[in-house]
Amino acid sequence: MSYIALPEGLPGIRAAMAFRPETAKPMNELVEILLCGPHTLTPGERELIATYVSSLNDCYYCQTIHGAIAAAHLNGDEDLVKRVKADFQHADISEKMKTLLVIAAKVQRGGKDVTAEDIAHARNAGASDLEIHDTVLISAAFCMFNRYVDGLATPQPRDEAFYRERGKLVAREGYVSVSKSYLPAKAEAPKAEVR
Amino acid sequence: MSYIALPEGLPGIRAAMAFRPETAKPMNELVEILLCGPHTLTPGERELIATYVSSLNDCYYCQTIHGAIAAAHLNGDEDLVKRVKADFQHADISEKMKTLLVIAAKVQRGGKDVTAEDIAHARNAGASDLEIHDTVLISAAFCMFNRYVDGLATPQPRDEAFYRERGKLVAREGYVSVSKSYLPAKAEAPKAEVR
Repeated sequence: MSYIALPEGLPGIRAAMAFRPETAKPMNELVEILLCGPHTLTPGERELIATYVSSLNDCYYCQTIHGAIAAAHLNGDEDLVKRVKADFQHADISEKMKTLLVIAAKVQRGGKDVTAEDIAHARNAGASDLEIHDTVLISAAFCMFNRYVDGLATPQPRDEAFYRERGKLVAREGYVSVSKSYLPAKAEAPKAEVR
Repeated sequence: MSYIALPEGLPGIRAAMAFRPETAKPMNELVEILLCGPHTLTPGERELIATYVSSLNDCYYCQTIHGAIAAAHLNGDEDLVKRVKADFQHADISEKMKTLLVIAAKVQRGGKDVTAEDIAHARNAGASDLEIHDTVLISAAFCMFNRYVDGLATPQPRDEAFYRERGKLVAREGYVSVSKSYLPAKAEAPKAEVR
């Protein structure tokens, strides 16, 4: 039972976003640029960072949907997603990705936990400034999304098939496009409550 | 010394945003809606929530600039801002604001820390669903901004007069408007690094 009267029939962040479309718009644009935009990290790699951070924050909805989107980008390799969450140092990902996941985990605990040594390791593994920047921001952004989803106690169905199907759709169409099905075309503030 | 090569001469989040204007745009739009948009909570109250969460995350830049913006909205009352950060239960703010700050503090620790009892207290003190929603999202968003600012080790000048002046400007003009002075009119990805 969510803490405020969210629109019915929508899971997780979509319920919160449908309640407040004005703030949903920039949030969807942010995640679209970070996870789907042109980049030297693949969409699958960026979704793995988002999934890993969401698992550290113990957010069921976000780690499951982004895990499904990651798997969709990675030829359906759900085992790799599970391995990254459980023990990424021994997962079949690049050394560069491992150094970026170390940074993401530090950011999840707190920005000041990142050290110059963490950055040097990433750079030595071939990470660019943009890759380091986006890793920090993806981790930071999911510290927002995870808190938003759980802080309102949004409904989070326990149905893996649901997330798997949705994951394929989002991987194919992106965040802004799929959001059009549950957000009004023009964002308007809830009239009764805003002066 | 920041961890990546940020544009020189800009403090805190502005340095990071100027490095990556594509992601800066939705972030500025989000904070503009949350903190400056039409609302039943005053801009000063919403800036107090942002300042308090930033202090819990120990982010010098964010707590100082948002504290200055809050004070600018609150007739220059810097003592109130300090009091809210140190001991909001005894600060001269409404009972409703105290219950919202309790929720903000829980969200800062983790979304699941918020309880139905916290929400009931806020509702009993007169908080609307929109006020509860926005409190959760402001806290969550500053968990992002704070990590972004500190995770890249952005430059954070220790000059109170600088923040005071900037705070007045942002309080008067808003986030999107002031960002135009340091962001390009049209956001473009750093060409060398993006394919």
